[in-house]
Parts: sequence; structure tokens; C-alpha cells
Amino acid sequence: MIYADNAATTAINPKALEAMLPFMTQCFGNASSTHEMGQRASQAMTKARMAIARCLGASPHEISFTSGGTESDNQAILSAAALGRNTCKTHIITSAFEHHAVLNTMKKLETDGFEITYLDIHSDGVIRPEQIAEHITPSTCLVSVMAANNETGTIQPVAEIGGICRRHHVIFHTDAVQAVGHIPVDVHEQQIDMLSMSAHKFGGPKGIGVLYARKDIPLINLLEGGSQERGKRPGTENIPAIVGMAAALEDACERMDESQKYLIPLRNRLTDELLKLPGAILNGDYDKRLPGHINFCFQGGNSESMLLLLNQQGICASAGSACTAGSMEPDHVLLALGRSPELAGTSLRLTLSESITPNDIDVIVQAVTDTLRIIQNDCFANQ
Amino acid sequence: MIYADNAATTAINPKALEAMLPFMTQCFGNASSTHEMGQRASQAMTKARMAIARCLGASPHEISFTSGGTESDNQAILSAAALGRNTCKTHIITSAFEHHAVLNTMKKLETDGFEITYLDIHSDGVIRPEQIAEHITPSTCLVSVMAANNETGTIQPVAEIGGICRRHHVIFHTDAVQAVGHIPVDVHEQQIDMLSMSAHKFGGPKGIGVLYARKDIPLINLLEGGSQERGKRPGTENIPAIVGMAAALEDACERMDESQKYLIPLRNRLTDELLKLPGAILNGDYDKRLPGHINFCFQGGNSESMLLLLNQQGICASAGSACTAGSMEPDHVLLALGRSPELAGTSLRLTLSESITPNDIDVIVQAVTDTLRIIQNDCFANQ
Repeated sequence: MIYADNAATTAINPKALEAMLPFMTQCFGNASSTHEMGQRASQAMTKARMAIARCLGASPHEISFTSGGTESDNQAILSAAALGRNTCKTHIITSAFEHHAVLNTMKKLETDGFEITYLDIHSDGVIRPEQIAEHITPSTCLVSVMAANNETGTIQPVAEIGGICRRHHVIFHTDAVQAVGHIPVDVHEQQIDMLSMSAHKFGGPKGIGVLYARKDIPLINLLEGGSQERGKRPGTENIPAIVGMAAALEDACERMDESQKYLIPLRNRLTDELLKLPGAILNGDYDKRLPGHINFCFQGGNSESMLLLLNQQGICASAGSACTAGSMEPDHVLLALGRSPELAGTSLRLTLSESITPNDIDVIVQAVTDTLRIIQNDCFANQ
Repeated sequence: MIYADNAATTAINPKALEAMLPFMTQCFGNASSTHEMGQRASQAMTKARMAIARCLGASPHEISFTSGGTESDNQAILSAAALGRNTCKTHIITSAFEHHAVLNTMKKLETDGFEITYLDIHSDGVIRPEQIAEHITPSTCLVSVMAANNETGTIQPVAEIGGICRRHHVIFHTDAVQAVGHIPVDVHEQQIDMLSMSAHKFGGPKGIGVLYARKDIPLINLLEGGSQERGKRPGTENIPAIVGMAAALEDACERMDESQKYLIPLRNRLTDELLKLPGAILNGDYDKRLPGHINFCFQGGNSESMLLLLNQQGICASAGSACTAGSMEPDHVLLALGRSPELAGTSLRLTLSESITPNDIDVIVQAVTDTLRIIQNDCFANQ
């Protein structure tokens, strides 16, 4: 089986699993307990928090642990909105191709009286920083733009957006779920005020994420309960997952250059080969994308049938976000890039990891070629 | 080291870990992905949901997965409250000794205009069902009473409360975090409408819980995002944890009788021995308690010092809830039982698991005896 759906989730990094196991078996204590078993767990959490802060260019007390990217996005946006409301600033800027964890939180805020500007996306899948500058008003309390898109893989000009927001004293949140561990992210250098990440997108375990919030930004509670995470995220701390996330992130950051050197040529070869196929259209910029990430539309294709046939050939791919897989709605990201609903229904996302071999690329190309031949023939025969 | 803090968290059941590992390594797919790797994950989740439903006497579609007990409590209470508000019923009954995940959610609802009745606790730590009946009014939308208290271990008359609520058409939620896997819980027989549980309290992994909600009770979203859990709990499903929770619960339920037969005599012997110590007062009823759970106050004692000295002797115990460990506030549960703030500050909770041997009980008794001798001497010397 060839797993080319790493944007949906990644295999666990063996180093992460190795780091987790002792905290699942011997050192299983509750980090809030004052006895030795608890304190060992608590120390592991402190060490993990420091490691994650270091990887992001943040301070440890700016890192809080959540159940994943969705929770981080919700808490970040609602915290910035609460702060905005306190100062009568109820305008937020985001993009039309954010993850639903962002978009649906924005929709909720709209019903609460916030005005949301959804930025158009350039056809190359990259936001232009000047779009942000144009839309900031004295009422703007938050800009939320993702660091890299989860469907097209296109990388956004985060540092430039951060600079603009900082100059205008507007909080900048970035959903960096797809970016962290894959491309350099430094909250200080890129002037990011709040950032969401999820461990299972870079070799960490599922069910754990981070919300980075600059130290002077107060967080609101999404949950009420105990005093964990300085009262801002109650619930017994998930130490094995926290430790695993830190190990995975440290490894991903250490090996980032090496990984990119391996993946980018493979990705480009796959892109080039697929571009030769009939009706192939690359979604998003050729270069400004995550190292292992490509997304195509194929005129006359059909996502669902393509995925079925690829799966039969042992290839795990997707049409877009796993969070909306099975949905009959045309993909909002591809529509935002200007694709027609019909064309959006022909998308294929292939997201590589280092476990993909050069030979696997040949197998994928052949399988996509064969699949398209069947589906496009059907399509043309039906016309 | 003797670990006697199983109410804070438990060691992982080896069967749970064994069940989890394949879903962390080979079958790591995103359960929302349509390819084989995703479908294997999705099937495992379906199987886990069925197993958990079976253990609770529920239907699989009444089981939704959350990040833990705190989230389940929040979602249950806020869902019932939303339903109540829609029908102009804004009165809720709970008890004064609930977990903070319940109490703090109630406080939030108070600021939103709900009227909350906090039931007094009888000195034996057991709610009387007639207290519920007395307080239900036509405005009551929810009764939330825990199945077993996390500090005293006292078991509440859940079935009787369930019966009263059902007769009055009031939703009954129970925080069963300490009960599930330790004493019989059957939502059908006990007429429970909503139930919260957390895997790490019965040998499952941390970071995963369940909210059971009777099929006709609509849930509100705490988080916005993707369409997981029928849109009610977005975020990539934590399959390894879900599978581990199901394995741990099945094992705990199968072995419940055997476990109780082992633990109850040990617990009673420990209780009897500690009752002989000077100033010893058992908190809560002698019998109506979880199989491995005891909680004492010791006149002239001091929780913090006792825990420190016990820890030095290799015994992991607690003063009460881990979620509030380190807090300087007098314990709300012991105050609710009528203990003075001073006496509440002398509490010691010992919560046993089957890994505790009869010899460990002797060691604990000796260590508590020695510890008390030191502390109570200090206390009397200072007087």
C-alpha cells in the first residue's frame, strides 16, 4: 500500500511512540498529583512545553495544550473576538479557504454580531499581503489566515501578514496545522500572535494540539472545570500525547532541511508527470507549497471514482480535507481559487511523506494515468 | 512504590495498550478518509462505539467521543440547558459536591440567567433521592448528580434519581467518571439520560472520554469545525485512544465482579486499620463507596505534610481531586459533607487498584501511622 494522504494524518514517528510509552506504562501519573508519580508526569510536561516553545520561537508559558487543531482554532479566534468586543472592535479578516474549524467559528461570530471579511484567494492559492492591509479598519480585532492550506498545500506569506497586523495593532492568528513541522515557523520572526497546531500532522499522536498565544493575550475558556493549564484548559493533562507531540516536533524540525531535500524533488517529479495527463490542472502555485503536497483537478474526472480506483490499486489519496470527506458539497477551497463546482469535483490531493520512495512515485503516476483513462473514457463516452 | 491514587488516574490496562498500538503504527489512517487506511480506522471506531454502548446499556448512536470527562460534562450540561432555555425552563438541580467540570459549568449558567439548586449532602456523602423530588419544579430542565464522588468515593442512588427525573420529564445527567468500569452502570436500567465518562479512570488512555446522550436529546457544539461525530464534535477522531478506551472498558466490565471481590475486603481492612488511628474520621459511608476508594480526615493532621511524608515512604496518595491539587482552598466536597475547613485540610484519599497487594495494605497502614505520629506530635507540641 502507498500512503499518499499525509495531510489527513501521518504515521506516528517511532521516536514519538518511544517517548510516549513510558508515560503510558510506568510513569502514568496525573500531572496535577503532588506525589512522585504525578511530579514525574508534570516534569515531562514542562520539558515538552519547553521543547515545543523552542521549536516555535515562543516562550513556554505561551504554549497551552489542547485536544487538537480544531480546539486551538476555536479558542484562539473566540479569545481574540472577546478581546475585540471589550474594545468595541468587532471586525475580523480571514480568508475564504480556511479550514472549517476557522470558517465555522467565524460563522458563529457573525451570528453574534461580528463582521467578517472573507478575503478572495488569488488563482495561485496564495493570499497577497496587501489584501490584508486594504481591509484592516479601526474596528478590526483579528486577522486569521492559515500558514499553509490543507487542500492545495499553498504556503501563505505569514511573515508579511504578521508585519502588517503588528503595525496596525491587530491580533494575527494563523492556523498552522499543515505547516508546523514541515516548513519553518517562528512566531517571533513572523510576528504571529496566536497559532494553532495539531500533533498528528507531523508524526505525533492524535488528540493533542497546541495553542500558542502571545503572553499578553488573555485566553477565554472553552471548557469549565479544574485548574489545569492555568485554568484555561481544564481536564487531566494528556501526558503521553504531550510528550509524543514534543518528540515528533523536535524530530521534524531537526530533520526539516533533509526532509525537504528529499520530498521537493519527488513532489516536483510527480507534479510534472501528472501535468502531462489529459485535462490536468495543478491547483495552487507550483513552488509555494508544502514539500510533499500536490493537488490537481482533471477535466472529465471524478474525485470519488478516482479515489475508489486508486484505492483498488493500493494507493491512499484524497480529494481534499478528510474533515469533509464524503460531503457532497463542492470543495470550498477550490471554489475560492476560482474553480467551477464541476471542476472542483474532479480534484485529487496527493500528500507525500519520506516513506514514499522514488519507485512509489512511478507507481502513483501509472495508477493515476490508468484511472483517468477509465474515467475520462467513461465521461467522453457518456457525452 | 505503592500507587494508591487510582481515582486521579490509573495505569493503562495492557489489553488497552495492545489494542491501541496497531492504530498508532500500521493502521494510523484518518477515520474520515475514504481509502482503505481510513476505512480500517473508521471500522475500528464503529466497533469501539458498539462495545462501549454495550457496556453502558446504550445504543451505539447515543455514544459520542470527546476529549475526556470535563468536555463530556460541559457538553451534556450546556446541551440540556439549551434545550431548557428553548422551553423556558431555566432551573437546574445539582449537588454541592460535584466535580468542578460540573460546578463551574453551573456557575457559568448562573451568569446566563439559570437558577441552580445545589443540593446539600448528607454527612454520609450520599444524596437522598427525595431531595431531588422536593426540588423539582415545572421550570426544572436538568438534574445533574454524579454516580460516585471523586473524593469520598461514595456511590449515589443513580437509579432512584433516574426514576424520579423520568417521572417528572426532567433530563438526568450523571458524571460517571469515577463509576464506569468500577461499579455497574446501565443507562437503560438506571434511567440515565446523559452520562459522562473518562477512559483514564478505568485503565484506558488519557485524552479520551464519552458523552452518552439519549437519542432524542440534541447536543450543542462546544467546538466548530468538521463533520466528525455527526457534526457535534469536530476534530480528527482519536482512533488509538477510542480503541484503547473500548478495550479497557470491556475488560473492566468483564472483570468487575472479580475485581470487587478482591478490592472490597482490602479496602475494608485498610479502613478498619486506619479507623484505629488517633483522630481518624472516615469521610462518607463505610459501604456505599467505590470498591477501592477511601477518604479520611485525621484531627491534628495536615494533608500536605502527610502526602509529603507518605511520598517519601514510596506511597502515592492524595488529599482529594487531582484537578485541584495544590489549591489552597478548603476542599468543597468535604465542606459539603459538613467537615470544618480546618478538618477538611487534614484529608487523605487512598484509592486502590488490583495491583495493590495485601502486603501493600500493611505497608500503607504502617506508613500512615508513622506519618500521623510525626505530624500530630508536631501539632500538639505547637499547641
